[in-house]
Amino acid sequence: MKTVISLPELRAARAAMPEPIGFIPTMGYLHEGHLSLARRARQECASVLASIFVNPTQFGPGEDLSKYPRDLPRDLSMFASVSVDLVWTPTPEAMYPPGFQTWVSVENLAKGLEGATRPGHFRGVATVVAKLFNAVQPQKAYFGQKDAQQAAVIKQMARDLDIPIEIIICPTVREADGLAMSSRNAYLNIDERRAATVLYRALSAAKVAYEGGERCAESLRCIMSRTINVEPLVKLQYVSCADYETLTELVTLSSKTLLSLAVFVGKTRLIDNFVIG
Amino acid sequence: MKTVISLPELRAARAAMPEPIGFIPTMGYLHEGHLSLARRARQECASVLASIFVNPTQFGPGEDLSKYPRDLPRDLSMFASVSVDLVWTPTPEAMYPPGFQTWVSVENLAKGLEGATRPGHFRGVATVVAKLFNAVQPQKAYFGQKDAQQAAVIKQMARDLDIPIEIIICPTVREADGLAMSSRNAYLNIDERRAATVLYRALSAAKVAYEGGERCAESLRCIMSRTINVEPLVKLQYVSCADYETLTELVTLSSKTLLSLAVFVGKTRLIDNFVIG
Repeated sequence: MKTVISLPELRAARAAMPEPIGFIPTMGYLHEGHLSLARRARQECASVLASIFVNPTQFGPGEDLSKYPRDLPRDLSMFASVSVDLVWTPTPEAMYPPGFQTWVSVENLAKGLEGATRPGHFRGVATVVAKLFNAVQPQKAYFGQKDAQQAAVIKQMARDLDIPIEIIICPTVREADGLAMSSRNAYLNIDERRAATVLYRALSAAKVAYEGGERCAESLRCIMSRTINVEPLVKLQYVSCADYETLTELVTLSSKTLLSLAVFVGKTRLIDNFVIG
Repeated sequence: MKTVISLPELRAARAAMPEPIGFIPTMGYLHEGHLSLARRARQECASVLASIFVNPTQFGPGEDLSKYPRDLPRDLSMFASVSVDLVWTPTPEAMYPPGFQTWVSVENLAKGLEGATRPGHFRGVATVVAKLFNAVQPQKAYFGQKDAQQAAVIKQMARDLDIPIEIIICPTVREADGLAMSSRNAYLNIDERRAATVLYRALSAAKVAYEGGERCAESLRCIMSRTINVEPLVKLQYVSCADYETLTELVTLSSKTLLSLAVFVGKTRLIDNFVIG
């Protein structure tokens, strides 16, 4: 496995790689979710290229940019273990040089849910992903369903800007007790880790109700929030029962639906979602 | 010369073209300025690809979108005359399908001059150029110096988003009496056409003063506005004496400088500029 840091090095290395190229953009501190993306790319593509970049522009003031977990040696050995060909680790200074002033914004899809609670987050995401795509020029790019709104925003951006890259969304990978894998799980102490299973339990309770015939979106939201509120270490930020395509809140469920929620477990913010219908 | 309309047709035709590919994005109603770009591309590239698309998102409310001049047969024969290989004429419906919601914005460079008088204009320009670039994926793209701020915005966008395309800015082509070639010159009646030379005369007067040693930006702006105001058919919108790189208004000239202005000649809005220093 080769690693590169600068954009010219990346372009030179990429030009020598057989196509199609599968690309996995990450912020590092890898877990099984990331590796599942790399394994899928390995099956589907002649070359697999990953990036590790903790993107400052998608963090708001007061968010966890400076203490976001990092462990590059561990990340590189994990990517090597799933036969990634090339890892690009650009620097913030190279990605956002003095005078940087161009932003990519996806309007409607970025408004609610994470966008409402993290203003500017998806502008940072769309901009950095556009840059990574232009630098790497892969044929396919892989993202996790755990960040459901991010996946929707990136698919919309690629469609709207005629970016010739197939966006592939892979299932959320979970711990044995249902907790969705996330780099931020590293922040949790033992009690918080135990309490964090409540996200999965809340989503599962809503899904059981749906499978029992419940089609009222507000009832499903209530089931989720009641489940969360029972857990004293966890503070609910939002629950949502939204149309899967538009991410607008539903009154009555009829087609593919995104159940999602965000909570604080102590100081750690966690999100999760189920797709139903 | 081949012509295509749909994006899949374009991608198929482009894939068969020898590289490097030179790209000339236009809004049609061609003049010598456009042809000079195509001739330059012809010299420098194995293939020359042009687009004709009157981009609705760069026109503000009350601007001239609906009556923007169009003559596709004439445009095609003009492009054929300079050996363009492929002309792409996308439709507004294909470029901006229902649900379109992604925008590219260049912040600082787009604020003043045209950006101040045409709000949203450069967001539309940057977005459509990003789309055209992603669709065509040329090695080089050619723009005219006549739209100086547009050239600066596009160069900045390409740099910031790591778009691997060389942006080449070509000199303004002028009529014998100095009027910068523009599709909008077609709107002028005989008297307005005669009066329109005042843009060139105003810029020339400021340049003569500069060459005589004048380094006060406000003096140069005054020379231009006084020249314009003598012409009764012409109404000044702005004059500017700005840093060539940042487009911020200067107090004292020291390095490369953009003299620019916008006027109304009757109902027709015209712009022009000189680069000095």
